[in-house]
Amino acid sequence: MWNRKHLLGLEELSREEIVEVLDRARTFRESCTSSARKHSTLAGKTVVMLFFEPSTRTTTSFTLAAQRLSADVVGFSNSGSSTTKGETLIDTVRNIEAMGVDILVIRHGASGAPHLAARHVDVSVVNAGDGTHEHPTQGLLDLYTIREKKGKFEGLKVVIVGDIAHSRVARSNIFGLRTLGAEVFVSGPATLVPEHITELGATVVKDFDEIVGEADVINVLRIQRERIEGTVLPSTAEYTRLFGLTRERERRMKPDAIVMHPGPINRGVEIAPEVADGSRSVILEQVTNGVAVRMAVLSMVVGK
Amino acid sequence: MWNRKHLLGLEELSREEIVEVLDRARTFRESCTSSARKHSTLAGKTVVMLFFEPSTRTTTSFTLAAQRLSADVVGFSNSGSSTTKGETLIDTVRNIEAMGVDILVIRHGASGAPHLAARHVDVSVVNAGDGTHEHPTQGLLDLYTIREKKGKFEGLKVVIVGDIAHSRVARSNIFGLRTLGAEVFVSGPATLVPEHITELGATVVKDFDEIVGEADVINVLRIQRERIEGTVLPSTAEYTRLFGLTRERERRMKPDAIVMHPGPINRGVEIAPEVADGSRSVILEQVTNGVAVRMAVLSMVVGK
Amino acid sequence: MWNRKHLLGLEELSREEIVEVLDRARTFRESCTSSARKHSTLAGKTVVMLFFEPSTRTTTSFTLAAQRLSADVVGFSNSGSSTTKGETLIDTVRNIEAMGVDILVIRHGASGAPHLAARHVDVSVVNAGDGTHEHPTQGLLDLYTIREKKGKFEGLKVVIVGDIAHSRVARSNIFGLRTLGAEVFVSGPATLVPEHITELGATVVKDFDEIVGEADVINVLRIQRERIEGTVLPSTAEYTRLFGLTRERERRMKPDAIVMHPGPINRGVEIAPEVADGSRSVILEQVTNGVAVRMAVLSMVVGK
Repeated sequence: MWNRKHLLGLEELSREEIVEVLDRARTFRESCTSSARKHSTLAGKTVVMLFFEPSTRTTTSFTLAAQRLSADVVGFSNSGSSTTKGETLIDTVRNIEAMGVDILVIRHGASGAPHLAARHVDVSVVNAGDGTHEHPTQGLLDLYTIREKKGKFEGLKVVIVGDIAHSRVARSNIFGLRTLGAEVFVSGPATLVPEHITELGATVVKDFDEIVGEADVINVLRIQRERIEGTVLPSTAEYTRLFGLTRERERRMKPDAIVMHPGPINRGVEIAPEVADGSRSVILEQVTNGVAVRMAVLSMVVGK
Repeated sequence: MWNRKHLLGLEELSREEIVEVLDRARTFRESCTSSARKHSTLAGKTVVMLFFEPSTRTTTSFTLAAQRLSADVVGFSNSGSSTTKGETLIDTVRNIEAMGVDILVIRHGASGAPHLAARHVDVSVVNAGDGTHEHPTQGLLDLYTIREKKGKFEGLKVVIVGDIAHSRVARSNIFGLRTLGAEVFVSGPATLVPEHITELGATVVKDFDEIVGEADVINVLRIQRERIEGTVLPSTAEYTRLFGLTRERERRMKPDAIVMHPGPINRGVEIAPEVADGSRSVILEQVTNGVAVRMAVLSMVVGK
Repeated sequence: MWNRKHLLGLEELSREEIVEVLDRARTFRESCTSSARKHSTLAGKTVVMLFFEPSTRTTTSFTLAAQRLSADVVGFSNSGSSTTKGETLIDTVRNIEAMGVDILVIRHGASGAPHLAARHVDVSVVNAGDGTHEHPTQGLLDLYTIREKKGKFEGLKVVIVGDIAHSRVARSNIFGLRTLGAEVFVSGPATLVPEHITELGATVVKDFDEIVGEADVINVLRIQRERIEGTVLPSTAEYTRLFGLTRERERRMKPDAIVMHPGPINRGVEIAPEVADGSRSVILEQVTNGVAVRMAVLSMVVGK
């Protein structure tokens, strides 16, 4: 039975807690496409979007989720905010709390920032991505999508490919997938796949091609071009050759294997356009599921 | 009978369709100034403002229109958005669609961008200005204002003066006015009045003074100072001398002729302050009508 | 009996008017922490936030206040707005008015800007800070907080310390406190405490230490580091030594004296962290009261 005031990461969630979120999300998911998609769950409540790193996509998804629960939503962006005037994060969140809000959705470039905030306020904190640490709602929407498509986690082989070292999406996925019983493999350029990732329960596969044919799920991470070119690899073309989910690799996947990507995608770099738009791709379903998962999270943390 | 899912331009609208929008707008316009100005038409629906070119004025007008129809509104501005991360327009709009929204209001610097978007999504797309192509809701609010003031279009002489070449407002006005039966004249510096504009049914008048006394409506376009000074003409003063709606010219207008401007105005450049604020000016009425017209459009495209 | 359409400053308010706002705010304050914190007072009304100077904190407070009164809220920020296209302030506000809104909340870098706006529109204008002139809702929330803590104004000694010359918070406080019967003292670096401030009824105390022990309230202003360092004083450390509310000074305060700060605070510069977080500090209560005071103001000006 869910009893958490905050959602800070998937590392600390039990199997039962994750399943409870996914089950709740499903009820919202079913109403998403109907005309009665608005719920009164958070009527009279206020959700503040506190994004120190801009992300229109994630902000929009959380905003839609909050609106569909009838919450009032207030944006609080970095530029021109008090934090640029030298205010500490703790002072900022305590001030927002003092205004009488219910949930803070925080994205921050520093790992652990939402955890720090949560220790200093009595309102709920939802982590919308902190540094290279966790992005729990992305992890949950990935789990949701996998469950809908595969029906189970035990025995599944999930491959995450890309810049594992800097990816909070990878970490949240690994935590959640391991808790639910899936096998997780990670692949990518050697300097972007840290050895200690194995401590989280993931298996490192240096040669992406070795695992492509065995995967039930391939989760392709977005590549930051500036991180690749001239440092890790000579070019993005070289990246594509070694780790891109090309049409050729896609053909070697198991018949019922699926392709995921947290977006936004670099077409032709980490994923071929035909694969992103192909029949295995569940990328847009991930986006749809994301709103439902965030509705579930917002409705579950509030008032705890 | 209106049956369009999108509003992309006035070029493709029939006389009946335009009149239907204007009639619908009138019902909303009448409620605008009353205390019961809120309607439940779009309750539970979500309108996304997807502005790749910033425009506080147009965004505010559309936002107010959507709020008065009880829609939820989500802004999605250029800065910090996925598009700056290299995502294609098509991927951006398909992602937003996947989140479960109902109407995309798109402004984009590239002509045809809303049309491209409309071909790739199932939700409604409303063009809020695309490059130098069309700005259909501005055209419609101009038509609305003319109809309210003059009662008809047949036999009317409407003069559009300014930078015709780069004006999507001019193009949308020409399309709509010609469809409704008005005569349209355009005037401006030779390099800013393309010859091919005559193919749309407008008559080019090189000497603005020749037509001032015959016009029933003069629609004064906003001048981009940087486009004038030192290139087309030696100075904005020279522009004012040749094409500005000065007090002197205003005096030569027909007794019942009206003055329009899409705003924001450059006082003393393309229009004299006394004319902008004078008894012929319907500039602020255009602004008020704009909200009603946008309410009509949003309520008509949704669910189609 | 309140009969004002605008709230432009505290200078012009009578004792009765101020008390009426504070009384109204108290009713909202009591509901702030309850689950029934939403009121239908402004249902169907639209509040526009017209911030020419960015301030996330004040914008958020006003937005929450408007939302709790069930108003629709539209933001209108400086960047990308028509004003950057050369439109005058008067044209901007008349345009927004023409869209059919009810209250304009205006922050502007120029003293008197909201007053200018108010003379040209029929809707209500609330000053959210104009240049170095007034910040009336901040003044009101300070008065509210003092009244809650001290129960009266007559006989109270209120000390405002910092950059008095550039502080609209100081001015609004002085106007309100004098009207309500409190004694007001100001202290700060000589070049930042103008002589003419005595004409408003405040007493200048050059040596902050002289007054610390007598104050019932010390209101610590935020210091702009760039205004101090190398010009007024050799360093912020020197500022702290002379005018900072240090732990040592706090110990010399009267037992029941309170500490206020409009925020955001520079910890360790104008106020010691232990003092800001200490038992005398009412800083976060000011923030909470601010929302209630703004609800009162918005509900009282509308429709007048």
